Amino acid sequence: MNESRIQHGGEGVIGIDAGGTRTRARLADAATGRTLGEGTGGPGNALSVPEDALARHLAEALRGAVPEGGRAAGVTAVVAGFAGGGPGGGREQARRALEAALAQTGVSPARIEVHGDAEVAFAAGPGTPADGLVLIAGTGAAGARVTGRRAVRAVDGDGWLLGDAGSGFWLGREALRAVLRALDGRGPATALAVPVEALCGGLGKERVVRYAYAGHPVRLAELSPLVVAAAAGGDAVAADLLDRAADELAATVAALAPRRGEPLVVTGGLLAPDGPLLRRLGDRVAPFGLTPSAVPDGLSGAVSLARLPR
Amino acid sequence: MNESRIQHGGEGVIGIDAGGTRTRARLADAATGRTLGEGTGGPGNALSVPEDALARHLAEALRGAVPEGGRAAGVTAVVAGFAGGGPGGGREQARRALEAALAQTGVSPARIEVHGDAEVAFAAGPGTPADGLVLIAGTGAAGARVTGRRAVRAVDGDGWLLGDAGSGFWLGREALRAVLRALDGRGPATALAVPVEALCGGLGKERVVRYAYAGHPVRLAELSPLVVAAAAGGDAVAADLLDRAADELAATVAALAPRRGEPLVVTGGLLAPDGPLLRRLGDRVAPFGLTPSAVPDGLSGAVSLARLPR
Repeated sequence: MNESRIQHGGEGVIGIDAGGTRTRARLADAATGRTLGEGTGGPGNALSVPEDALARHLAEALRGAVPEGGRAAGVTAVVAGFAGGGPGGGREQARRALEAALAQTGVSPARIEVHGDAEVAFAAGPGTPADGLVLIAGTGAAGARVTGRRAVRAVDGDGWLLGDAGSGFWLGREALRAVLRALDGRGPATALAVPVEALCGGLGKERVVRYAYAGHPVRLAELSPLVVAAAAGGDAVAADLLDRAADELAATVAALAPRRGEPLVVTGGLLAPDGPLLRRLGDRVAPFGLTPSAVPDGLSGAVSLARLPR
Repeated sequence: MNESRIQHGGEGVIGIDAGGTRTRARLADAATGRTLGEGTGGPGNALSVPEDALARHLAEALRGAVPEGGRAAGVTAVVAGFAGGGPGGGREQARRALEAALAQTGVSPARIEVHGDAEVAFAAGPGTPADGLVLIAGTGAAGARVTGRRAVRAVDGDGWLLGDAGSGFWLGREALRAVLRALDGRGPATALAVPVEALCGGLGKERVVRYAYAGHPVRLAELSPLVVAAAAGGDAVAADLLDRAADELAATVAALAPRRGEPLVVTGGLLAPDGPLLRRLGDRVAPFGLTPSAVPDGLSGAVSLARLPR
């Protein structure tokens, strides 16, 4: 039984990855890193989720990772990475919510660390690196330079209205724009019209516009797989969108003043292992002397940071 | 007294310009076109304003133009142009709301015509033209080809999320993006940082991002005068934004397949007489053999259409 490991005197650590769509927590053996329990809760963006809801979502995830019993007492360190959890952002709110959630679940570790999501994603890279670059491209997109395990400079991450260039939202919005431009003669025809017609219940500018404004803009990120599929099917407009997205992401890396050979950890739906933009990004950052290391998410990074000796 | 003109047997017509921020109505002498009364009501976008509110705003504007008394009986024609009032859009709702408002105010004309805002703006051009091009660039941006006084083809007008390229919203959003890019090293320094800092209560990416997401995106159109002012003060980034906006608007005209010498009527805050993009647009459409005719709004066009013999 995994559970006996910590119940009988071993030490445990908890890593938390609190993202825009869900919050995940993992209990691991401090000595070996072996996973002992995992839990999931609601959205964990420290800027957009109210503090009481954030605490509730963290507690949900913690209760999954640390079921009631004797194990909570053995947890020595908790490290959490929050979307929107940067020092100028929601870090203080995130810390208060985390402390409330830990109290609710009976976990009282000697060490609690709050990070931004970029920092835990970076720590998920091979060898738990301390210095280098990290690039996240999922629903949103953001890059950061990490020095001594802390983000010291951020590029983009400005959200759907102002930035997130090359993100899933960006791809989805550009897909609709490409279809509109094809419909009104400003751009070339595209095979994207077929799935967009299916989504919008018909083609024509009015239908597409109505669809786009009928919900929160960020949901347009759901269209990004359509772009990937159309490009795979040979559509030039869709392939150009993927190229442009990778150009934008490479520009974010370039703005971080990369140093040859330093680590570049990448994650998010578009840049995770086997992600649709991973090869394109690799081609574009090779001239900087960088090779992306793709990781599935920041959860393992949070656990790694929690296991570091302090 | 103007009022006596129609009270004693003359005929009157009413033109209405129902836009996104307000609705205006004008009573004019059918024979001479002389203005006999004007009124203003709330927002009149046929797609975004609920039908009962739309009828109320129209009635407000009508009551201003046609005060209680004997004049309503002399009105022979009402022509109204609605933002969002295109045939695939809110035209049916606009007509129902207009008929309700006319009934409330005791006006029962022989002829009622509902148009999109582009059609009445086009009719405001010199000589009340029947065929040609119209381009509106205010908070949003849209172009149309008009044939026989009806828009037969629309380009852009896709709203802040998907289009309105070169509009006031577009300029305001790009101003914030330029400041963010300057702050994180992706773009050059810009004097726009000074007024943006004042707006956002401080500089730094977090402040700018918080400001941008704190209200409805369309309000960013309010920043477009800052771009005009910074460009006038010699800022290269701001001047480049005005150039790019004019490029986008010229591309909208180009997509309408312009014919040399045909009318091009332009309006909206950016393209009204003395508007900040008028000269830039003129330079860009001259190669197509077009000369923009700038008009203040569509109200006079609606009156002109109402005065046409039918």
